Amino acid sequence: MFTGCKQSSQTSNNSALSSDVASKVYVAPGEYDEFYAFVSGGFSGQLSVYGLPSGRLLKVIPVFSQDAEKGYGYNEETIPMLNTSFGFIPWDDAHHPELSQTDGETDGRWVFINGNNTPRIARIDLSTFETAEIIEIPNSGGNHSSPFTTENTEYVVAGTRFAVPYPQKDMSIKEYKGNFKGALTFIDVEKESGHMEVAFQVLMPGFNYDLAHSGKGKSHGWTFFTTYNTEESNTLLEVGASQNDKDYIAAINWKKAEEYIAEGKFKTIPANYAHNIYDEKTHVATSEMKKEVRVLDPAECPGLVYFLPTPKSPHGVDVDPTGEYIVGNGKLSADLTVHSFTKVLQAIENKSFDGEAYGIPILKMDEIVAGIVEQPGLGPLHTEFDGKGNAYTTFFISSEVVKWKVGTWEVIDRIPSYYSVGHLMIPGGDSKKPEGKYLVALNKITKDRYLPTGPELNHSAQLYDISGDKMELLLDFPTIGEPHYAQGISAGKVMSKSKKFYPIDENEHPHATKSESDVKVVREGNIVRIYMTAIRSHLNPDNIEGVKVGDKVYFHLTNLEQDWDVPHGFSVMGAQNAELLVMPGQTETLYWEPKQEGVYPFYCTDFCSALHQEMQGYVRVSPANSDVPVKWAMGDD
Amino acid sequence: MFTGCKQSSQTSNNSALSSDVASKVYVAPGEYDEFYAFVSGGFSGQLSVYGLPSGRLLKVIPVFSQDAEKGYGYNEETIPMLNTSFGFIPWDDAHHPELSQTDGETDGRWVFINGNNTPRIARIDLSTFETAEIIEIPNSGGNHSSPFTTENTEYVVAGTRFAVPYPQKDMSIKEYKGNFKGALTFIDVEKESGHMEVAFQVLMPGFNYDLAHSGKGKSHGWTFFTTYNTEESNTLLEVGASQNDKDYIAAINWKKAEEYIAEGKFKTIPANYAHNIYDEKTHVATSEMKKEVRVLDPAECPGLVYFLPTPKSPHGVDVDPTGEYIVGNGKLSADLTVHSFTKVLQAIENKSFDGEAYGIPILKMDEIVAGIVEQPGLGPLHTEFDGKGNAYTTFFISSEVVKWKVGTWEVIDRIPSYYSVGHLMIPGGDSKKPEGKYLVALNKITKDRYLPTGPELNHSAQLYDISGDKMELLLDFPTIGEPHYAQGISAGKVMSKSKKFYPIDENEHPHATKSESDVKVVREGNIVRIYMTAIRSHLNPDNIEGVKVGDKVYFHLTNLEQDWDVPHGFSVMGAQNAELLVMPGQTETLYWEPKQEGVYPFYCTDFCSALHQEMQGYVRVSPANSDVPVKWAMGDD
Repeated sequence: MFTGCKQSSQTSNNSALSSDVASKVYVAPGEYDEFYAFVSGGFSGQLSVYGLPSGRLLKVIPVFSQDAEKGYGYNEETIPMLNTSFGFIPWDDAHHPELSQTDGETDGRWVFINGNNTPRIARIDLSTFETAEIIEIPNSGGNHSSPFTTENTEYVVAGTRFAVPYPQKDMSIKEYKGNFKGALTFIDVEKESGHMEVAFQVLMPGFNYDLAHSGKGKSHGWTFFTTYNTEESNTLLEVGASQNDKDYIAAINWKKAEEYIAEGKFKTIPANYAHNIYDEKTHVATSEMKKEVRVLDPAECPGLVYFLPTPKSPHGVDVDPTGEYIVGNGKLSADLTVHSFTKVLQAIENKSFDGEAYGIPILKMDEIVAGIVEQPGLGPLHTEFDGKGNAYTTFFISSEVVKWKVGTWEVIDRIPSYYSVGHLMIPGGDSKKPEGKYLVALNKITKDRYLPTGPELNHSAQLYDISGDKMELLLDFPTIGEPHYAQGISAGKVMSKSKKFYPIDENEHPHATKSESDVKVVREGNIVRIYMTAIRSHLNPDNIEGVKVGDKVYFHLTNLEQDWDVPHGFSVMGAQNAELLVMPGQTETLYWEPKQEGVYPFYCTDFCSALHQEMQGYVRVSPANSDVPVKWAMGDD
Repeated sequence: MFTGCKQSSQTSNNSALSSDVASKVYVAPGEYDEFYAFVSGGFSGQLSVYGLPSGRLLKVIPVFSQDAEKGYGYNEETIPMLNTSFGFIPWDDAHHPELSQTDGETDGRWVFINGNNTPRIARIDLSTFETAEIIEIPNSGGNHSSPFTTENTEYVVAGTRFAVPYPQKDMSIKEYKGNFKGALTFIDVEKESGHMEVAFQVLMPGFNYDLAHSGKGKSHGWTFFTTYNTEESNTLLEVGASQNDKDYIAAINWKKAEEYIAEGKFKTIPANYAHNIYDEKTHVATSEMKKEVRVLDPAECPGLVYFLPTPKSPHGVDVDPTGEYIVGNGKLSADLTVHSFTKVLQAIENKSFDGEAYGIPILKMDEIVAGIVEQPGLGPLHTEFDGKGNAYTTFFISSEVVKWKVGTWEVIDRIPSYYSVGHLMIPGGDSKKPEGKYLVALNKITKDRYLPTGPELNHSAQLYDISGDKMELLLDFPTIGEPHYAQGISAGKVMSKSKKFYPIDENEHPHATKSESDVKVVREGNIVRIYMTAIRSHLNPDNIEGVKVGDKVYFHLTNLEQDWDVPHGFSVMGAQNAELLVMPGQTETLYWEPKQEGVYPFYCTDFCSALHQEMQGYVRVSPANSDVPVKWAMGDD
């Protein structure tokens, strides 16, 4: 607790030990971090990029929420990225970043991340660190068990957390049991471009689907989803969904699904979902509404789905690097149950079932368990791996990370987390090739870990060194939003691909101005388009007249710079939309409806040069009935 | 430049020196930083709170921009905070945080910060770290020379950066010279509450007003504003505003202004500006429109304003801790000119003027100069002080910080910055009592300082140890937005005041629900108000029926927790507004217009307990013509 007696770190009093730890996380000025960490923002809806081991925040990538820092979701080019079947949604709750993989190894091409509230998956391009694509998930509610890629990024997945009427319709909530359904959606990822399409949905009982992981190696071709609320309660779930001793891990054979799809054994049902793509050449996002989806019903598709009974309200499901072991983190269980994929296949072959649920065979738990990690802690949530035969599981209630041996199931180390750890992240820790040097605990409660900042505190992450036998706590670092989950990757796998600017001669924006000689102001009816350029240290034109109250004005600003890290910003006094922040070679558009006559300044908002303060201009707004002609100038005083 | 040959910091290779530096910035897990740093976000419109020396981001305080992470500017309670005379503006450009002062010393009560684009000043309360008040600045354009408090926080100031028609009207931009004006606004700050009111404006010539600082000690009662573009150019200012060898520092005698106001020697002119206040008891912001402002004309108020000629396009104006020395940082000058306040008073007494400009006497530069720091670097921008007789000036073009001796004007140390430093910050460095242990350089260009993140890079700050004779670079840390300016303060001056939650029995929100027994759903016409509570681990009610397409639905959520750091979040699938994030004891409102029939889940978005995933519910949306009655339940399965 916050006692007020803590003192700030005093250099002179640091022990040699502390100094040694300090050196482990210190990245000297001008030096680079060893790993990129991609940390979701939870309720912020964004994805943050940190360097490890320093814990420094390198960038917040706007994904599912408007971002005034970058103009995302405000400028005309990116507004379509936030379109959904419900219209424009300025916010979502982003949970699980997942790096693309090739042969089960992180390849540094893309990060996928799920939107939880209004179900969506986004793809972030790691050559630009920008959101390239967002696809909505139809007929779902709360896309939590997502995106969790397959080992060659064949698919990312999306499992409904909340069962809903399928398809959506008006019905009494009391009719929940048996009538509400859960859709598990497989999104195809095009190999070269990363382009996403909904491949198919698997229609499941009205349980809650919590988390997922795809198989790898021997279990490649399967994806595993945890369930809770197999009781199908629709109220006070803290009681109602905690009755059953066991819930299920749903094992989906997606290679079998592909066969059924190929055989035409699907139904096509109406659906309404948005698919939004940002085109890096035009610098413009477009949004398309899709109208149907293919659905497989497990009761009609034998071999497609099996239930693996797992104690108790399993939260995370994690597959070890070999693909043999499937860890069910039963959050209300005292033990940790690990299933054997080999045994699962054997039980299926033997048709050794313990009945079925809604037509889906239930395997016998004692026939598929590989081992049990006994009483390792309270409230197990998630497990990752170090590639050296060890697993690391977080315990929310006992607030610790426990290291155990895969195969012998013995606990070999434990260390506290501050406080209430949820997910954990080891770079590559859910892939076939973990880079097991560091572990990051993603904590839910902060309280007294940092200087207080009133009732609202940043969430917190903790960095541990796991290179030795014993875990060692190195660093606390606060995060933007809730650090819900994260992925990490060696810097070298990403940095060489990172673009520095957009070539101006490749700019295909429909309203680009590629040379100062082409600047102009064009009126068509009450639409005024201002084709403007920015280059150190002027905006051209910088004197604009002939705009009238009631006009619809578009400032199309092209940044003519062709050097790294010379963005220009743009704002107009009183403009209802946020500013622009335009990268070199890019064009962005600020939409403005002037409401009052007057002469309004505009200026560059990103300090760009010694004469940045001089990078300004004026736009004159005349009354609606004025006959002031459209006119523009720069340097013509 | 980015060469690709840099390697991440390797612990084993760190020299003893590096290890020593590491220890100086390392704040071990559970330990506290020594200083709070309040760093503006520039184009992000927000204020970030960092710990020093760690450089850790403790919180982003939303001020002038919507923030999806916190629901600020989206929930009904905070939307009025972003109201202006132009309507709701979701964004601004926040430049200069300024701590409140008592007797010239930072007192840890409030931070003020200016909105640059749509001119405003905000006050942040440091007991809650929330924006408490925003006041718009009438008849101004680009509120850059702001807020820069007086020594007992009698006033914060707001100087127009861009001259505009005064008051605003439709006129040709070519009529700029002599017709556009600059207003310097003094905002009264109520001593106990911090409540702001526009006291008066001083009507100035149509120059650009760049920065300001108020006097202290012997110069208390005066405020100094830099000018550029005394040429009164209205186009291509990078050339047009760089012609004159000298521009002016405008010295305003605000005690004299108070006399003129008391004597009634002001004009009252029409004005239209918003004043927005967030009430901590009701948890609701209200916005009021003000209609007039009092104006003083220097030509009619002798002794109110003097011009101090200063080479060349002076950017920052900084007053030393004694109040005697006024540093003009002429950004296009080779030297740094320091004026003597004593000599200024003497020259005024002697009426030793070099003519006048628009009725304002111009002092003779050679009579007021205390000293010149000769050729210290290229592009001086800002100066702060360490309280030990030293000054530190940033040089944008030569990208360095130069330390010089106040009084002897000799350069005694210099150190590079990476890259292109703008402002600098020493905690208390613009007050009478600097805490001169650290210096933070606030840099404009990042390029290769961190792992690359595509064309867009975070800006960067650098921390220097200035406790010894020689400055020592300790740390690079990236920032949110542009770290335009910052203020720092010893943690002890703030942390003891920091609130941990809001007492539920003091909650005066008009739609608060203070007990679970009071939850309800009320329909009045097509307005549906849902009075809901959150406490671990349920939302009450969690089954809601009787909502129809076309309704206007208000979810009034009260967080019943009374413990530190137990916020609850709230979201509804498909809701057009962002989520809520409700602190313990607080009530917030999400507005929703359901467009489609169906049954939509809602849930807690801030992981709060082991059964957080169970903290969910459903709202049924029936067709507009449905007769499903309003109904709510929890636990009534």
